[in-house]
Amino acid sequence: MAGPCSVESEEQVFAVAESVMKSGAKILRGGAFKPRTSPYSFQGLREEGLQLLRAAASKYNLKVITEVMDNSQIDLVEKYADILWIGARNMQNFTFLKGLGRASKPVMLKRGLAATIEEWLMSAEYILSGGNHQVILCERGIRTFETATRNTMDVGAIPVIKKKSHLPIIADPSHGIGIRDKVIPMARACVAAAADGIMVEVHNDPDHAKTDGAQSLFSEQFAQLMKEVRIIAEAIGRKIT
Amino acid sequence: MAGPCSVESEEQVFAVAESVMKSGAKILRGGAFKPRTSPYSFQGLREEGLQLLRAAASKYNLKVITEVMDNSQIDLVEKYADILWIGARNMQNFTFLKGLGRASKPVMLKRGLAATIEEWLMSAEYILSGGNHQVILCERGIRTFETATRNTMDVGAIPVIKKKSHLPIIADPSHGIGIRDKVIPMARACVAAAADGIMVEVHNDPDHAKTDGAQSLFSEQFAQLMKEVRIIAEAIGRKIT
Amino acid sequence: MAGPCSVESEEQVFAVAESVMKSGAKILRGGAFKPRTSPYSFQGLREEGLQLLRAAASKYNLKVITEVMDNSQIDLVEKYADILWIGARNMQNFTFLKGLGRASKPVMLKRGLAATIEEWLMSAEYILSGGNHQVILCERGIRTFETATRNTMDVGAIPVIKKKSHLPIIADPSHGIGIRDKVIPMARACVAAAADGIMVEVHNDPDHAKTDGAQSLFSEQFAQLMKEVRIIAEAIGRKIT
Amino acid sequence: MAGPCSVESEEQVFAVAESVMKSGAKILRGGAFKPRTSPYSFQGLREEGLQLLRAAASKYNLKVITEVMDNSQIDLVEKYADILWIGARNMQNFTFLKGLGRASKPVMLKRGLAATIEEWLMSAEYILSGGNHQVILCERGIRTFETATRNTMDVGAIPVIKKKSHLPIIADPSHGIGIRDKVIPMARACVAAAADGIMVEVHNDPDHAKTDGAQSLFSEQFAQLMKEVRIIAEAIGRKIT
Repeated sequence: MAGPCSVESEEQVFAVAESVMKSGAKILRGGAFKPRTSPYSFQGLREEGLQLLRAAASKYNLKVITEVMDNSQIDLVEKYADILWIGARNMQNFTFLKGLGRASKPVMLKRGLAATIEEWLMSAEYILSGGNHQVILCERGIRTFETATRNTMDVGAIPVIKKKSHLPIIADPSHGIGIRDKVIPMARACVAAAADGIMVEVHNDPDHAKTDGAQSLFSEQFAQLMKEVRIIAEAIGRKIT
Repeated sequence: MAGPCSVESEEQVFAVAESVMKSGAKILRGGAFKPRTSPYSFQGLREEGLQLLRAAASKYNLKVITEVMDNSQIDLVEKYADILWIGARNMQNFTFLKGLGRASKPVMLKRGLAATIEEWLMSAEYILSGGNHQVILCERGIRTFETATRNTMDVGAIPVIKKKSHLPIIADPSHGIGIRDKVIPMARACVAAAADGIMVEVHNDPDHAKTDGAQSLFSEQFAQLMKEVRIIAEAIGRKIT
Repeated sequence: MAGPCSVESEEQVFAVAESVMKSGAKILRGGAFKPRTSPYSFQGLREEGLQLLRAAASKYNLKVITEVMDNSQIDLVEKYADILWIGARNMQNFTFLKGLGRASKPVMLKRGLAATIEEWLMSAEYILSGGNHQVILCERGIRTFETATRNTMDVGAIPVIKKKSHLPIIADPSHGIGIRDKVIPMARACVAAAADGIMVEVHNDPDHAKTDGAQSLFSEQFAQLMKEVRIIAEAIGRKIT
Repeated sequence: MAGPCSVESEEQVFAVAESVMKSGAKILRGGAFKPRTSPYSFQGLREEGLQLLRAAASKYNLKVITEVMDNSQIDLVEKYADILWIGARNMQNFTFLKGLGRASKPVMLKRGLAATIEEWLMSAEYILSGGNHQVILCERGIRTFETATRNTMDVGAIPVIKKKSHLPIIADPSHGIGIRDKVIPMARACVAAAADGIMVEVHNDPDHAKTDGAQSLFSEQFAQLMKEVRIIAEAIGRKIT
């Protein structure tokens, strides 16, 4: 899974979609509704963003994953997306989890910043017990005392989840580490730890991205990453489709 | 502020209301909608709980504070409560914060388990910028490596907030520390650090409480606490109304 | 217990000793050997510092507490000090703890930055099992994700220790919070939580202190603190000697 | 680097040395002096352990790395070991770091449980500034709120160190994760993140190990690990010597 943090314009989303498809990505990510710490920051293109994302994905034969922020958005987002992703800050929004249990599309549930693995699995249980059995977990870093990186990626959560649950687990090194030149080694590390997939932020012009530019990869970096990751996956007896 | 964790029955809520009023509490707390880590735990009495809470508070001349879990509950809860409280897990539920910005009642915003003071104030800003200027902050412990207590109460956040913001800050030592015999020293500590109020869980029969029994005070403990807290407040030049 | 972070000069240590004695302090603190994160920072006056500390304390009828950094310093420091204090970074230096078990003076053991209460008590056990039964514990803040304060003071550790151990526990709000105007509310909070004593940094000229100036109290602040703390101690049924 | 947590007997250390050599290990690890949280736990075979380690390593053409706990042990350990390793709890024992600055053998400095990357590099600076330029860093997990694993391995520290420092960095997944079946994926992850080496605990009979049995690999697991790690190293353009 690859794509920009936020959908910003037609040009941007088509350019990124084409380049990640060429490197072998299968799913296009992009945010149309953006949860932001401050109420005064850019909040996303909303439905227009969803339309652009869908159009670009269809053109390049990709699937769409995008964030849903609350129950009122589920119907709208399901019209455009193949997978609904739930942000870390909503991991214990129980009303929302119940709503997702009634959704018809697969849900990717990000781990909360201070959530234990136990609590994360319990939140997945809210969705599963509502009748939606397509839940994917996504490790995206936890909050610790270390400030040299944006978050501390808990790579160890991957083998723990593999043992405790049948749910697939992917990793989001872009948010996990938050610094562009460290996204690649972290993505490799997660694949080596047997993650079932990787989601990274790729931008056609990271230096002018409206959100998260500093952690978005250039297209060539993504191509290089895909090459390395294929070999690592094979080394541990897995295959990238 | 004092009262049970969950509203469980008419008998329970009236007994607790009477006893906390006699010790000098001004506001009755109690949960009718309970956010629970597991989908299989007791989820609250819902509207019936709100009615009981209102009736008990009115009889004993108390105000009501109770938890709201999402936008769809705001109208209902406003009919019964004087203050809406927002749980720690919803502190960065931005759609909800925007909804609360349009609410007519004061909002008490609990600090998220892994939220920095900065992020907490930013979340308050979402409510304030929506037009609701009656926001109260509530410190309730953060998540750290220490497991001897339920959470680590960040008493230091109280003087930090006092300096950075004009908003009142209260403390919730019941959740902050999570062990009954430590709630009293922690409540005293928060008042000594100049908190503007204290919210504690009191139950008429803690050993049979449906939720959080192990951290709820007996009525006599609450009476003793109120006595000590009055003297401490005076020692630092404040008065308990 | 009060005094400067580091002993810097005769004038400084006598001025501080006189002022804290007048406000009611019983023990003079001051560092002659300074453990510093960087090898290029000020490392202390060493034996000359110990002599100044002893002289000032004797003149004003105070006891001396000062830091020992390793076994080779124990004999020297015992000549001048009444209590040996062990820094947080040495809390699990087991060779040293064994050496302290053979020392003849009381030992104050600071909690490590990431030490659980359990591990802290185990470290005290190393000293006790060596034959030295005079151990005082000192809570001085733990490391968490919050960066608004230097450390997060775990006030809750005070009642936990009170229940689990017979050892006295004091608090060091100067290091715990690390910001001058927040030291006073935190000192009050720790007394309200039933700490057996408080250690604070006081300096005659904090703005020119060689170490920790930003968290040292002015003399008048210390006098005010002592007044408030006396009332709080009485409110909870204790007395300051 | 591979070997048992503690040296326990001649039979044990020779068996492990032979097996790890066959799988391609270059350095034999083993503790003769064991720092233990409790004073009542097994403390190591001391000099006898060093002799056994040296003999086994020499027979199988391996180098020896073993822990030194304080200045008084440096001379003794240098007689037997090729690399001195410094435990996490001694990372800010400054007197000791200065002593290591005068040692003649390379030093491997483990990261403290709550040490920032910045502080870790500063501690290395103590050794370097003393004249010993052979310092190796070792990431071994930090302390966080997550209790599903022994520590949280900060794999992200590897690329951060690579960028900030010229010092080699290795990883210790055995302590980092603390559960046998998760050591292998974590070792692979660290190599994929470009660590310069890996240190793992291998035991000929983990179920009867005196220390850390639950995280020690069986010999066949170590062989499998070495095979996978070779392919990953090549995928990222590196070679295992």
